[in-house]
Amino acid sequence: MKVTVYRKEHFNAAHRLHNPNWTDEKNRMVFGKCNNPSFHGHNYDLIVKLRGPIDPDTGYVYDMKLLKDLMREHVINKFDHKNLNLDTHEFKNLNPTAENIAVVIWNILRDKIETTYELTVRLYETERNFVEYDGNIL
Amino acid sequence: MKVTVYRKEHFNAAHRLHNPNWTDEKNRMVFGKCNNPSFHGHNYDLIVKLRGPIDPDTGYVYDMKLLKDLMREHVINKFDHKNLNLDTHEFKNLNPTAENIAVVIWNILRDKIETTYELTVRLYETERNFVEYDGNIL
Amino acid sequence: MKVTVYRKEHFNAAHRLHNPNWTDEKNRMVFGKCNNPSFHGHNYDLIVKLRGPIDPDTGYVYDMKLLKDLMREHVINKFDHKNLNLDTHEFKNLNPTAENIAVVIWNILRDKIETTYELTVRLYETERNFVEYDGNIL
Amino acid sequence: MKVTVYRKEHFNAAHRLHNPNWTDEKNRMVFGKCNNPSFHGHNYDLIVKLRGPIDPDTGYVYDMKLLKDLMREHVINKFDHKNLNLDTHEFKNLNPTAENIAVVIWNILRDKIETTYELTVRLYETERNFVEYDGNIL
Amino acid sequence: MKVTVYRKEHFNAAHRLHNPNWTDEKNRMVFGKCNNPSFHGHNYDLIVKLRGPIDPDTGYVYDMKLLKDLMREHVINKFDHKNLNLDTHEFKNLNPTAENIAVVIWNILRDKIETTYELTVRLYETERNFVEYDGNIL
Amino acid sequence: MKVTVYRKEHFNAAHRLHNPNWTDEKNRMVFGKCNNPSFHGHNYDLIVKLRGPIDPDTGYVYDMKLLKDLMREHVINKFDHKNLNLDTHEFKNLNPTAENIAVVIWNILRDKIETTYELTVRLYETERNFVEYDGNIL
Repeated sequence: MKVTVYRKEHFNAAHRLHNPNWTDEKNRMVFGKCNNPSFHGHNYDLIVKLRGPIDPDTGYVYDMKLLKDLMREHVINKFDHKNLNLDTHEFKNLNPTAENIAVVIWNILRDKIETTYELTVRLYETERNFVEYDGNIL
Repeated sequence: MKVTVYRKEHFNAAHRLHNPNWTDEKNRMVFGKCNNPSFHGHNYDLIVKLRGPIDPDTGYVYDMKLLKDLMREHVINKFDHKNLNLDTHEFKNLNPTAENIAVVIWNILRDKIETTYELTVRLYETERNFVEYDGNIL
Repeated sequence: MKVTVYRKEHFNAAHRLHNPNWTDEKNRMVFGKCNNPSFHGHNYDLIVKLRGPIDPDTGYVYDMKLLKDLMREHVINKFDHKNLNLDTHEFKNLNPTAENIAVVIWNILRDKIETTYELTVRLYETERNFVEYDGNIL
Repeated sequence: MKVTVYRKEHFNAAHRLHNPNWTDEKNRMVFGKCNNPSFHGHNYDLIVKLRGPIDPDTGYVYDMKLLKDLMREHVINKFDHKNLNLDTHEFKNLNPTAENIAVVIWNILRDKIETTYELTVRLYETERNFVEYDGNIL
Repeated sequence: MKVTVYRKEHFNAAHRLHNPNWTDEKNRMVFGKCNNPSFHGHNYDLIVKLRGPIDPDTGYVYDMKLLKDLMREHVINKFDHKNLNLDTHEFKNLNPTAENIAVVIWNILRDKIETTYELTVRLYETERNFVEYDGNIL
Repeated sequence: MKVTVYRKEHFNAAHRLHNPNWTDEKNRMVFGKCNNPSFHGHNYDLIVKLRGPIDPDTGYVYDMKLLKDLMREHVINKFDHKNLNLDTHEFKNLNPTAENIAVVIWNILRDKIETTYELTVRLYETERNFVEYDGNIL
């Protein structure tokens, strides 16, 4: 009997979308106002989803207190109130689109959570634009 | 590496649920107050979901600006501030239930978006009643 | 010691904005797509606010169950799943803008609730457009 | 052609997380403040999801009025304004974690809804902690 | 130049509405299912509102970090994951209605915040029922 | 008969809290992680509130289409996807706290909207921290 559990956290960050292999003109054309060289920012909502069996002793799939602590220690503390392009090594050479941020967070958490749990990461850049990554290639 | 991206838009429309092959009495019994001949209406929230690979040049699965434009040009402009039964050819002979509206929107967008992207449409009729269609028959 | 209590309900209705003293052209110019002759519709959220003293026996300013019943009997049942222009006598000769709907609802409820309670009505036409009426002329 | 429909309801309940086979100390260590012997409580949001074919006569996958009635009669009336540990037989010997509550609700509804419909239950304990159960063991 | 600032926190608690001077029958009649002797519970959302001048050195009316700490230390820690009737001295002899909880929280915070700031407390018992107290008797 | 109308818009921006008259150490102590020299960012929600009489010809207090256009032209276009400290002259010498941003927006809009309308600006920096300014000094 498998159940899926979800935990929501959030962080606030600045970023800029930019491809260093392109001209400024092409960057402006493709990324529009998201290419602003002075950066802009977002309140990101992050939902982590784990699927696994219920532990009969606790009635838990995963201790939400533990998941909250993992998310805060390894994701929120790293990105909250930061400039993703300037302050984090993950986005030194990777464009901080919502898609790439979700993949980066998934990789960080995949290392911390036993593989018996299927892991999915959902990231809201705004209420209207959001993405999800589950590690699958198909 | 596949990622899912989501975009939310909304439209406001009037509609009436009615089956012309049934008596008025049966229509009232089945559809209740949704059968009101003078129509009623909703604020519909529409979430379009695309699953595909990340483009390494942009870091995007799909340009959200382009998806927003497609949704507005082909869906929102067609249904917003309209009477679905009277003003649209799609529902001239199709009951505008949330289910059917979602299928119609899916068909409209499926024609506009390359099939390398899996497409799913979620439609909120109210905060409490919503539907989802992904084109699968199973 | 005065406390303010709030109760939220909702209804779904169709309407059309139109001034019969104007030409069709002027109506279209002023009301835009809200002037659609076939109507459009909304999910209206209604918040009623009462300010008064706490009853020391109950700890209530007003019994929320009673307020819910008043709202449902006198407002929701009247407007839910209706066409405001065609199905209600209140808007036979009054343009059903959010402002006018709020005033109409305030007048309905003012008659049912003792004047020891200050009454305010807030009406959401959409998440982004909403109005409030408290009966004051200043 | 299969479509998924969703209906949201809610209930307010008290509960306590506790394993009677453990010492008080271990219970406090594992469940923290959720182990408070005097109970605490939540506003639970329940979303029921049904997947099935659209009935061509109604345009419905499932009559939402009927689903609402099933949810209220068999779930909401049973749990709303109750103490899950003391007032319900389901949690006399089962720890009322969100996971277990979701499984219990799924089992209740699975009996009432034809198996042609795939059934999933999502339960929000808070806006930040929620779970989902679909009856699958894989 | 006065500005109003708001901070939202939340807590989860169990409670029971009951007047010990009344018969059980009258309690059940007045408070309905909220009178359940085994308690029920809620996710309470608390919004604290302060009105005061902007400090020209900081650009703050009040340091939100400080307000958050005050709310957590004096309100959230006291009520979160508690049974309001059994675990708190404030409601030993006071019915824990939303109105009374708001007044109690206002009194707690009024003692901790300089009177140059006007203080208002808003408390959501559910999304649909909420109250506000500002200390005024008119 | 006066009614209040509200319109919500949003913008995404980067900012940094900093007082140039203070040492770096004092800035870090007072503003904490909001003082990050590389900036961070937010999704700001802006609600503009106008109070005035209902125009008997339109049933409007103020044309929401016009208010939306004013907000987009004079506020959203100026701040959206910008770095408030670097890209806007308003915050060249003014700390971009939520309080100061609200006052700046109020001053911009006060010039564009006739003084027969009382004007209030509410700004959400996050869902949990928000401010309101109405131009009053008391």
